Amino acid sequence: MRTMIDLGKAAKTASHFLKTVSTTVKNDALRKAASLMRQRADEILAANREDIENSKGLTAAQTDRLSLNPQRVEAMASMLEMVACLEDPVGKLIKEWTVQSGLRIRRVRVPLGVIGVIYESRPNVTADAAALCLKSGNACILRPGSESFSSSRAILALFQEALSQAGFPEGVAQMVPTPDREAVGELLKLSSYVDVIVPRGGKSLIARVQQESRIPVLAHLDGNCHVYVDRAADLEMAKKVVLNAKMRRTGICGAAEKLLVDRACAETHLKPLVQMLLEVGCEVRGDEATQAVDPRVLPAQESDWPTEYLDAVIAVKVVNGVDEAVAHIERYGSHHTDSIVTNNQAIAEKFLLNVDSAIVLHNASTQFADGGEFGMGAEIGIATGRLHARGPVGLEELTTYKNVVFGNGHIRK
Amino acid sequence: MRTMIDLGKAAKTASHFLKTVSTTVKNDALRKAASLMRQRADEILAANREDIENSKGLTAAQTDRLSLNPQRVEAMASMLEMVACLEDPVGKLIKEWTVQSGLRIRRVRVPLGVIGVIYESRPNVTADAAALCLKSGNACILRPGSESFSSSRAILALFQEALSQAGFPEGVAQMVPTPDREAVGELLKLSSYVDVIVPRGGKSLIARVQQESRIPVLAHLDGNCHVYVDRAADLEMAKKVVLNAKMRRTGICGAAEKLLVDRACAETHLKPLVQMLLEVGCEVRGDEATQAVDPRVLPAQESDWPTEYLDAVIAVKVVNGVDEAVAHIERYGSHHTDSIVTNNQAIAEKFLLNVDSAIVLHNASTQFADGGEFGMGAEIGIATGRLHARGPVGLEELTTYKNVVFGNGHIRK
Repeated sequence: MRTMIDLGKAAKTASHFLKTVSTTVKNDALRKAASLMRQRADEILAANREDIENSKGLTAAQTDRLSLNPQRVEAMASMLEMVACLEDPVGKLIKEWTVQSGLRIRRVRVPLGVIGVIYESRPNVTADAAALCLKSGNACILRPGSESFSSSRAILALFQEALSQAGFPEGVAQMVPTPDREAVGELLKLSSYVDVIVPRGGKSLIARVQQESRIPVLAHLDGNCHVYVDRAADLEMAKKVVLNAKMRRTGICGAAEKLLVDRACAETHLKPLVQMLLEVGCEVRGDEATQAVDPRVLPAQESDWPTEYLDAVIAVKVVNGVDEAVAHIERYGSHHTDSIVTNNQAIAEKFLLNVDSAIVLHNASTQFADGGEFGMGAEIGIATGRLHARGPVGLEELTTYKNVVFGNGHIRK
Repeated sequence: MRTMIDLGKAAKTASHFLKTVSTTVKNDALRKAASLMRQRADEILAANREDIENSKGLTAAQTDRLSLNPQRVEAMASMLEMVACLEDPVGKLIKEWTVQSGLRIRRVRVPLGVIGVIYESRPNVTADAAALCLKSGNACILRPGSESFSSSRAILALFQEALSQAGFPEGVAQMVPTPDREAVGELLKLSSYVDVIVPRGGKSLIARVQQESRIPVLAHLDGNCHVYVDRAADLEMAKKVVLNAKMRRTGICGAAEKLLVDRACAETHLKPLVQMLLEVGCEVRGDEATQAVDPRVLPAQESDWPTEYLDAVIAVKVVNGVDEAVAHIERYGSHHTDSIVTNNQAIAEKFLLNVDSAIVLHNASTQFADGGEFGMGAEIGIATGRLHARGPVGLEELTTYKNVVFGNGHIRK
């Protein structure tokens, strides 16, 4: 069996090859992979049945995420074709300038190199990650969740078959050889071969990766997102934005987990907002002022403020204007996505400047925290670290740059 | 005495303050610091004499780097004024676009946060680092080399005095409380407060920082830079570029350490290049073909190819064209700076595309690997990692970005 170091070496070699592959060749391979998945969907579905039979003790939600059907295989194939249509970031000029010595400098995008993607048991992530890495010129080593191992292997086998037909080396897209937990630890140690780790999954996975990895990680640990309803907010707009931010989908990282209401408008805005949430079945935990507006509001504890529920639960607090809202978000937030609702431009600017999150919004739902909604076409995740990429990580964020300098026999004085 | 955690907390608080300080206020503080350094140069020089008296067993070069005099203090003051004149990257728009939903997204530059700078006994780096961090809106924690501790403290005290007069909190620019070696390890563990570490110094310092740090590091370990002289190179240009790349200053990271000569022009180009280097006092180590051109050429060992000499030494190898040159550089290089000399555009493009270094040059000396030469005004170092910044790290590279999204009550479907 191949060791992780074998995989690392093959990926590094493949990454040299990928740096110079044309957009057309990459796109053709993606379209070929889509067509193979459609033709041989039965192989993927058979492997998926095997995974489902072998999986034990999964919740209904976990089983749903693990399960494939013909429509879901078609969705994967369509996604591959969609990635083929996206703009190729590799070779794009970031900026160009001429310096005093007469040298011309071009800063151009190049692939990151080798990306390790660690994810939970969602088979479609295998196709997503392989496609985004390929299009951005990166080799990838995938570590799917153990429950989806057979499905992921079947999907990747078809992807690799398409790559192989197009003349790509085998290291372009690989999977760890075994589904055991140790493979994660080994992948995180491959710092000679792997340039960046992208973990996708629950908090415990991300926390483990961030703690163990010697390789840079692009990820977010929490999405403890806030909506601040300011004194100058239109109540109807605030209701619409808060409802969408909290309830459109409660399990995504961009879902609002906290509502802050300006004391100056609490009299008019707090009760309608709280009752709207209660009426659609959202549990509301509040500070004293919030508890006072409706007996169904539960008392919020200190531990609520830093918590991401990923459920139909929200904690509500009344604050003294934008300054206290900002201070609360900076203290308890996760620097992911935070929104202000206000019709006062100066207050909005203060919030947008001072809240130091990857995404800050004015009069819009936090659920827009998504690469697709950002027009990136697709994302491999959302990053809340400070270096390299903040917010949705799409094709462009999967590249770095080099400085290409043109002279004419220039020497330095 | 204040602990490292105290420093970290003060720096984090100061970084929130710095995010919103205007360019004018930062520039005024820098100019005030310059003027204090001029007025009270004697305090800095007295502290420097103390450092020199206490230092033992330093080489002449080390003592020179440690020593200040009135001209060097004036150079520090001028540097502060120069940084005041540079463009402020904070708040700069990177790009702006409108997405299908009608949301407008602005990607704007924001400071990184808190920067830990670890350096050796060059007192002027204290002023450099503090100024660049301040201008880019970052708080800094400095850890100077122990031999220059008093000098650095005196320089920073004047800098802090200027900041304090301008109303900045004390955490904006701080220094570790003691010169012991443990302070480095403690700084590297402050991941709750410090966002990025910038080490400046010799290889052993950088290696230690890269190995121990849980905080992202912007640095380069080696500058094993190559010049490849291609078959289509003009000999006179090649001589000029090689001489400058190797000998202008041998101790800087952009100095060429290797010369690769295309076999197709070895007959005409190799001997003149080698003899030119020998005649200016450069030791030449070569492969067999190179040894054959002059008896003064020493045999190169396998260990020469990955080695950065930082001295008047070069290793020379004859290669079969650009492909072998690229392969050699990818195998032994340090992804810092590499140059090709050729008049063939297609060959140049192949080299510039395939050599995956932070800086690649065509017909120009590797010694241009410098933030000043890149028109950045100043640099805090050169980075060869793949994420965030590659090449010179100037003010812009000391920032990150946030995504600011403008809606009008937008909710996601």
